[in-house]
Amino acid sequence: VPNSIITLTTDFGEESPYVAAMKGVILGINPAARILDLSHQIPPQDLRHAAFFLSNAIPWFPSEVIHVIVVDPGVGTERALLYVNVDGHQLLVPDNGCWTELACAVPDKRVVLRLANPTFWRHPVSATFHGRDILAPVAAHLSLGIEPGQLGPPVQDWVRLAISPPVCEGDVWSGEIVFIDHFGNLITNIPRDAFQKMASPKLLVKIGDEKVRPVWVRSYANVPAGTLIALISSSDTFEVAVSMGDAAARLGVRAGSGIRVVIEP
Amino acid sequence: VPNSIITLTTDFGEESPYVAAMKGVILGINPAARILDLSHQIPPQDLRHAAFFLSNAIPWFPSEVIHVIVVDPGVGTERALLYVNVDGHQLLVPDNGCWTELACAVPDKRVVLRLANPTFWRHPVSATFHGRDILAPVAAHLSLGIEPGQLGPPVQDWVRLAISPPVCEGDVWSGEIVFIDHFGNLITNIPRDAFQKMASPKLLVKIGDEKVRPVWVRSYANVPAGTLIALISSSDTFEVAVSMGDAAARLGVRAGSGIRVVIEP
Amino acid sequence: VPNSIITLTTDFGEESPYVAAMKGVILGINPAARILDLSHQIPPQDLRHAAFFLSNAIPWFPSEVIHVIVVDPGVGTERALLYVNVDGHQLLVPDNGCWTELACAVPDKRVVLRLANPTFWRHPVSATFHGRDILAPVAAHLSLGIEPGQLGPPVQDWVRLAISPPVCEGDVWSGEIVFIDHFGNLITNIPRDAFQKMASPKLLVKIGDEKVRPVWVRSYANVPAGTLIALISSSDTFEVAVSMGDAAARLGVRAGSGIRVVIEP
Repeated sequence: VPNSIITLTTDFGEESPYVAAMKGVILGINPAARILDLSHQIPPQDLRHAAFFLSNAIPWFPSEVIHVIVVDPGVGTERALLYVNVDGHQLLVPDNGCWTELACAVPDKRVVLRLANPTFWRHPVSATFHGRDILAPVAAHLSLGIEPGQLGPPVQDWVRLAISPPVCEGDVWSGEIVFIDHFGNLITNIPRDAFQKMASPKLLVKIGDEKVRPVWVRSYANVPAGTLIALISSSDTFEVAVSMGDAAARLGVRAGSGIRVVIEP
Repeated sequence: VPNSIITLTTDFGEESPYVAAMKGVILGINPAARILDLSHQIPPQDLRHAAFFLSNAIPWFPSEVIHVIVVDPGVGTERALLYVNVDGHQLLVPDNGCWTELACAVPDKRVVLRLANPTFWRHPVSATFHGRDILAPVAAHLSLGIEPGQLGPPVQDWVRLAISPPVCEGDVWSGEIVFIDHFGNLITNIPRDAFQKMASPKLLVKIGDEKVRPVWVRSYANVPAGTLIALISSSDTFEVAVSMGDAAARLGVRAGSGIRVVIEP
Repeated sequence: VPNSIITLTTDFGEESPYVAAMKGVILGINPAARILDLSHQIPPQDLRHAAFFLSNAIPWFPSEVIHVIVVDPGVGTERALLYVNVDGHQLLVPDNGCWTELACAVPDKRVVLRLANPTFWRHPVSATFHGRDILAPVAAHLSLGIEPGQLGPPVQDWVRLAISPPVCEGDVWSGEIVFIDHFGNLITNIPRDAFQKMASPKLLVKIGDEKVRPVWVRSYANVPAGTLIALISSSDTFEVAVSMGDAAARLGVRAGSGIRVVIEP
């Protein structure tokens, strides 16, 4: 439908004209498209950040929305560009693995095509900006109702990010800090189930070389400001934070760090 | 009406997926809603910044727009979430005082309800993200035309920010730097009336321990670049700035600092 | 038409309420307007940055879109505000030269008016925020269908940024780094034609006092991460970059720096 929603997620920042160029290209093809920014502050070329972002953003949207993702360190190489339909969510995205976590939950409800039909691209196609020259125009044409099948052939294989699932041995969980948010909260991949039976578990947490004993809470403000806390994140995983503070700065931690949690009920 | 405007103001930043999740939840309930970002760069948990922002943004909008505000240090505690109608502007906002300056001017045109009806929430409600699970879905349902009265009961009391009004003694005004903008301009709460009768007042300004004599101007470029100036802000209050420069950096000042102005006509 | 698109490009940042106030003013006049952010991260008062941004953003839009630009160091002085129609693109912009590069390509398809009719302004007009009080309301009225001729009289002269075109002497091009993007890529004004005949030119590049020999590539990922590279930018000019890195940081360069390129075929 002409007034379809097209969302944009990029690592372009906002001081550069790249996002604006993509918006112009979309509206040049479909002036009725409703463009919605998700983020242009994905850290440059950070596929893991993009993967976490998409996993925690896309599922909330109604199906049929078209999501354009341009975190594309491989632009201009032989890496493919993909049309992906996961459970009704439509993505246009470089084949670099940033979207594959989304598809784990619903392997049966997945269509993946390789963009190969230059009819729907802008020409000449630059070597460094396929967001503007391929993904944006394809999104606009999709919003006007072309059949996805016209974009290119199905593919059976694509790049996957190497992700280590969290491991549980007895009372010890080993996982990863998969994301640090704007507040400096440390979001891990250790599932909430690990803590579900405990009203108030005692925790010994090892991050890097540091061992800490965060206070288990329901939410940030249940303790005095500055307290190191542990809780269930809004993504339903284990989170370490500082009440009214910045845990990443306090503990000197970066995304991708390992974390070990010893749970003493 | 389905194509209602819903604005978003948060302290979430743009690298995190939280704003995107809220947009997805809104569109999942009302796909025709027109979502408009006001800011996601309110400094984390900074209620005074949020209060200034809202006082200088909301009144410009037409009434009937729905404004969602998520600066919410108390999420997951017993703090209430509110529906507020001030002079026709509809706000969905935590009960932390960030909106109350808006209501001072029009005490008679005010409705305040406590969100208490879980029918309009997303379930399960997380302990740390009521923006996504309560405020966003309530906004979407409001945009579809539900009666505000369905959201919860009226309340007569709510949190207010402690704000010290500026004080005038003879030719001396004492007030506060209530906001430092993106340019480093110092916006105070001293009213323009204090200067209204003077074409070109002489000023002695004390900020912290520093005494300065800014040049009184109409606007920034009326003097050489680098000049310390004083003028009436676009919020109709006293402002200290540096022409083509950053007064906050020059004077080492932060929002919340006291300011004293001696006016020599 | 009521649901016209109005884009906003400013140097206001997003922590201040200035952009939100402009959005409110526009919607107060035309509630159906479709507001689209291009950027609010133009560096403060940086007209050259704004000029590059506009030249690389506006041409991608369909004509009839209304673009409001507020990078306005001269606000409150006698500088004019302009309505510009360049090849169908409509701009509302201070007369400071930030838009004039756009007009070079199409001198015949240009209308420039001086905003002089206060009927379409918000009153009282502040001395420091003409974006809110003049440009935003004029954009909203335009979107409702008023004739541009009602805004003010045509003008034949306007401010132009002093721009030195690149110079070629034999195999040596001298130009300027006109823009540094979010990734730290150095975009110059040396045209792609200079390199067109060479499949793989050898380059000696002098930036400031530093001489470097970047590897000529088609795109960023065609060489190992960290390699200093040269390529054709998505603006069709010569670009210096670091594969998966930040060339501006590596070379200590700022926008406006001169660059010399010796091409050895």
